[in-house]
Amino acid sequence: MTTFTNTRIVRIEWGDCDPAGIIYYPNYFRIFDAATAMLFEAALGMTKFQMFKNLEFTGWPLVRTQARFLKPTRFGDDVEVASTVKFGRTSFEVEHKLSLKGELCAECSEKRVWTVRDAQGYLKSHPVPEAVLGKFKTN
Amino acid sequence: MTTFTNTRIVRIEWGDCDPAGIIYYPNYFRIFDAATAMLFEAALGMTKFQMFKNLEFTGWPLVRTQARFLKPTRFGDDVEVASTVKFGRTSFEVEHKLSLKGELCAECSEKRVWTVRDAQGYLKSHPVPEAVLGKFKTN
Amino acid sequence: MTTFTNTRIVRIEWGDCDPAGIIYYPNYFRIFDAATAMLFEAALGMTKFQMFKNLEFTGWPLVRTQARFLKPTRFGDDVEVASTVKFGRTSFEVEHKLSLKGELCAECSEKRVWTVRDAQGYLKSHPVPEAVLGKFKTN
Amino acid sequence: MTTFTNTRIVRIEWGDCDPAGIIYYPNYFRIFDAATAMLFEAALGMTKFQMFKNLEFTGWPLVRTQARFLKPTRFGDDVEVASTVKFGRTSFEVEHKLSLKGELCAECSEKRVWTVRDAQGYLKSHPVPEAVLGKFKTN
Repeated sequence: MTTFTNTRIVRIEWGDCDPAGIIYYPNYFRIFDAATAMLFEAALGMTKFQMFKNLEFTGWPLVRTQARFLKPTRFGDDVEVASTVKFGRTSFEVEHKLSLKGELCAECSEKRVWTVRDAQGYLKSHPVPEAVLGKFKTN
Repeated sequence: MTTFTNTRIVRIEWGDCDPAGIIYYPNYFRIFDAATAMLFEAALGMTKFQMFKNLEFTGWPLVRTQARFLKPTRFGDDVEVASTVKFGRTSFEVEHKLSLKGELCAECSEKRVWTVRDAQGYLKSHPVPEAVLGKFKTN
Repeated sequence: MTTFTNTRIVRIEWGDCDPAGIIYYPNYFRIFDAATAMLFEAALGMTKFQMFKNLEFTGWPLVRTQARFLKPTRFGDDVEVASTVKFGRTSFEVEHKLSLKGELCAECSEKRVWTVRDAQGYLKSHPVPEAVLGKFKTN
Repeated sequence: MTTFTNTRIVRIEWGDCDPAGIIYYPNYFRIFDAATAMLFEAALGMTKFQMFKNLEFTGWPLVRTQARFLKPTRFGDDVEVASTVKFGRTSFEVEHKLSLKGELCAECSEKRVWTVRDAQGYLKSHPVPEAVLGKFKTN
């Protein structure tokens, strides 16, 4: 089983926060979704946009997610998001840990399916291509 | 020149508001964009999704918008959005007036272009179809 | 244990959807968060804004959420969201079931804590007031 | 009259884009709002959160904005946002120019008011503090 971690810093913006002055939690899922794309970008050396062009790939729909929220974050905070992927055959799981100054504030897991388009144009699940897996091994 | 007005009530949600406790203004543009779609739905009797299927139509990209913000609104407010369209040849303008209890809180104008796909698959501007204009006249 | 269900119809908007043409899942959490507020509004007869004014209440921070996504929804879809609350002592759980034409598309559970402000101004968990619980029983 | 420009790179995310595959324009206003905050952060050396703590400041509500959209941007694009502020007495204007690979894609102007809290706790407009203006001159 291949695992791979990517870490990035994300600024929490005023517009991400709600009248309680803390991040509005649906915006955490925006951050996590972008973190998954950046994890692949770090390994593959291409953006999600380029993946659509260059790979047998029509998206990674989310099947299931769960998250725990331990401490709030606020606008102006630069949080660290560490994202780790583990590959199955046609699916993969990503774990995100979001922390501020070394303290874990939120964590999230995602299960996503690798999809391609079949002859009729419908999306179907498909084994993650070897060319993709290989990049995660060698990086 | 054809004009047509549609009015709807929109609830301002907690998640639309920022740490000042009032609506985060980019969310007004989400409300206005949806109001434009609802205006066409009121006249044409079909959703934007159905418009893509049933009409020579590939979208109405926004060319220009401007807005004034007069009074804030808050989560729990049920605001009224009155949207009026005026058609040009390949473009149209929409004016939105957003009010609470009869007081104008924000107003916005949009200029959008009617687009279709050309033979090469590129988007290009196109006269608003007569079948569309006719629905705005008779309704 | 008190349970209570509220059901509402929500329009999926163009701006809720992503380049795959289906809802961008973080926007489901906006829908679920608003559905929780509407569930309390249905029982208490007051908006969340009014709850801050009228009750011993400073918010219901989310501790944990999980969601499954079974079928995609698209702009123009009018989905039904059925939300059920079960109260603990200082916390409560909400289950949301989102369906389209009778088919379950997504489901989500939330655990939230009832909070009040202590003498120093800090948030702390607090038993859900009897006056609140009573409204859920009698409705 | 003091002017000051700050430039930053912003990644357009999948979740910022709509079913046309291009940025959903309300998200441009999120980018512009954050760019205004970053412009002040660049000059003052403090985040907006710190401004609330350290300055006579309770926010800069938007009075008016207008924007033109010239070319679309897409997920994976790293756009440049150049933001220039000009101060009036109690208000200021910000011009944002958003470009991709040197080509202007969108431009926006904002008029905002500097506000403080009066003795009764209400927001009122107030001259931009000299200590703030001074930082824009010397930087």
